[in-house]
Amino acid sequence: MKAVYFDGTKATFRDNLDKPVPEAGESLVRILMSAVCSTDKEILRGYKPGFTGVMGHEFVGVVEESDQEQLIGKRVVGEINAGCGHCIYCRTGREKHCEERKVLGLERKDGCFAEYMTIATHLLHIVPWDLPTELAVFTEPLAAALEILSQIHIRPEERCAIIGDGRLAFLIAQVVAMTGARVTVIGRHEEKLEKFRPYAEITMEPEDIYEIVIEASGKKEGILLAKEIVRHQGTIVLKSTYAGEVSINLSDLTVHEITIKGSRCGPFEPALHLLRKRKIELPEIELHRLEDFEKAFSSNAFKAGFSISE
Amino acid sequence: MKAVYFDGTKATFRDNLDKPVPEAGESLVRILMSAVCSTDKEILRGYKPGFTGVMGHEFVGVVEESDQEQLIGKRVVGEINAGCGHCIYCRTGREKHCEERKVLGLERKDGCFAEYMTIATHLLHIVPWDLPTELAVFTEPLAAALEILSQIHIRPEERCAIIGDGRLAFLIAQVVAMTGARVTVIGRHEEKLEKFRPYAEITMEPEDIYEIVIEASGKKEGILLAKEIVRHQGTIVLKSTYAGEVSINLSDLTVHEITIKGSRCGPFEPALHLLRKRKIELPEIELHRLEDFEKAFSSNAFKAGFSISE
Repeated sequence: MKAVYFDGTKATFRDNLDKPVPEAGESLVRILMSAVCSTDKEILRGYKPGFTGVMGHEFVGVVEESDQEQLIGKRVVGEINAGCGHCIYCRTGREKHCEERKVLGLERKDGCFAEYMTIATHLLHIVPWDLPTELAVFTEPLAAALEILSQIHIRPEERCAIIGDGRLAFLIAQVVAMTGARVTVIGRHEEKLEKFRPYAEITMEPEDIYEIVIEASGKKEGILLAKEIVRHQGTIVLKSTYAGEVSINLSDLTVHEITIKGSRCGPFEPALHLLRKRKIELPEIELHRLEDFEKAFSSNAFKAGFSISE
Repeated sequence: MKAVYFDGTKATFRDNLDKPVPEAGESLVRILMSAVCSTDKEILRGYKPGFTGVMGHEFVGVVEESDQEQLIGKRVVGEINAGCGHCIYCRTGREKHCEERKVLGLERKDGCFAEYMTIATHLLHIVPWDLPTELAVFTEPLAAALEILSQIHIRPEERCAIIGDGRLAFLIAQVVAMTGARVTVIGRHEEKLEKFRPYAEITMEPEDIYEIVIEASGKKEGILLAKEIVRHQGTIVLKSTYAGEVSINLSDLTVHEITIKGSRCGPFEPALHLLRKRKIELPEIELHRLEDFEKAFSSNAFKAGFSISE
């Protein structure tokens, strides 16, 4: 089968991979569409040393084989972390933090930039019939945005800032705006910022102070700006992942009683619900063939991805 | 009057300072006893550039002059942060975070290593008659330990680690143990660690993983150890303050969804309550004269301080 494969150094197109065979508890999914996330690009920069395999973790597919018969033929999306099933994380509802987990296209598990993929069946969610594939492919990143609302209580009277004007920031801005809180998006690109106007105030030079600051710029400097503009006793949410370290003054955190909260994958069902109800504005995904993966990786579109089914 | 004065570079003994005069809203307090905190020593290492004045912020005194007549003659302790009274912090119950605040012995306000001190009257708390001065002088650091319980909910089934075997760690261990949670103290000094046995397990080489890790070592490396031993989705509480920066990998925080929470001054009334009920074990304070401040600053006693009243 065709796939975009990371060989430990670079991404390559392959057309001679074997169709994968599901293990016990897994399903075989034929991929209809998959999308590129900035984490995929971070892999190319060394974010996941040790990983080799098919890239990609955002997808919509059709179940072809499964231990759960009722899933066969259904359109599905899937969570990306498969835990061992018996450690303290798996036993306490924190499977995505299992130390032995496999992560689609990121850790010890082939991903979805391919014609077929296997995935633990319990990670699958059926896509409602009235939710088109082009929208459902945003389930995973929208769930990641919703994770913020799962982790912290944003009150309508609290001013929130979002650092970053990219794809994830756009989803976060819409989700945070749902709380009634006044949202300010801090970006570096005038034309990207314009998109945020229906949901947020926009600025390239923040002057205010915020109770909650969400760092979604994907840049190391984001945390330093966040520290500058967060109110004392306020909260910084870290959504970005990238390789490398940042030097920060921790005494400031102590003295100002700042909370920093790491935030990653989130709940799929509310994401599917919001997409189905068309509550989230999504620019059209720019689609490529797997063969042309470099175009998808270097695209400046809001979202680029692959149309895989023939 | 006599005082220990920080001239911007070093601590000096002075015996020719004027007795201070209270401003509107302030009281004049005759100091009976004051205690040295590790933050005082950090000042000598450059932690508060710009501060000059009488050092010290832990004290018990007697009110000699006050706009609140019922306080005159009463034994008191006092919170250390005096806000401007009208900014967003002061108006939302966060006076200790006021940007214009004066902080006893730390920022734009003379402290308590002196015969007399002035302090905003609303910061004073009366010491119960049955609470001796030698115990009441621990109110401020005990309140700082209790701040942790104000900020986060520690469940009895959650394992907690405390990094540090010093004075603050000793108070934190007792306070956290009250929650019913199993506490492990990680230290570097065998004889200091022995003191913690009634409240905690003790170790010099941690092998476990903890839901909550409290960094109270006063060492920069503490945060790095905390990151290693905290469970994913767990919480690190930062109690230490010190000069300088630390380099950390923020992607770890995002991926493991760690929460870092800065924690500083805490509530005085519950501290006075616990001290009065003798719920906190406190080794005897080692007392010096102001003239011998260097002995107090270099003491290895659990707590050193000054007996000031003649």
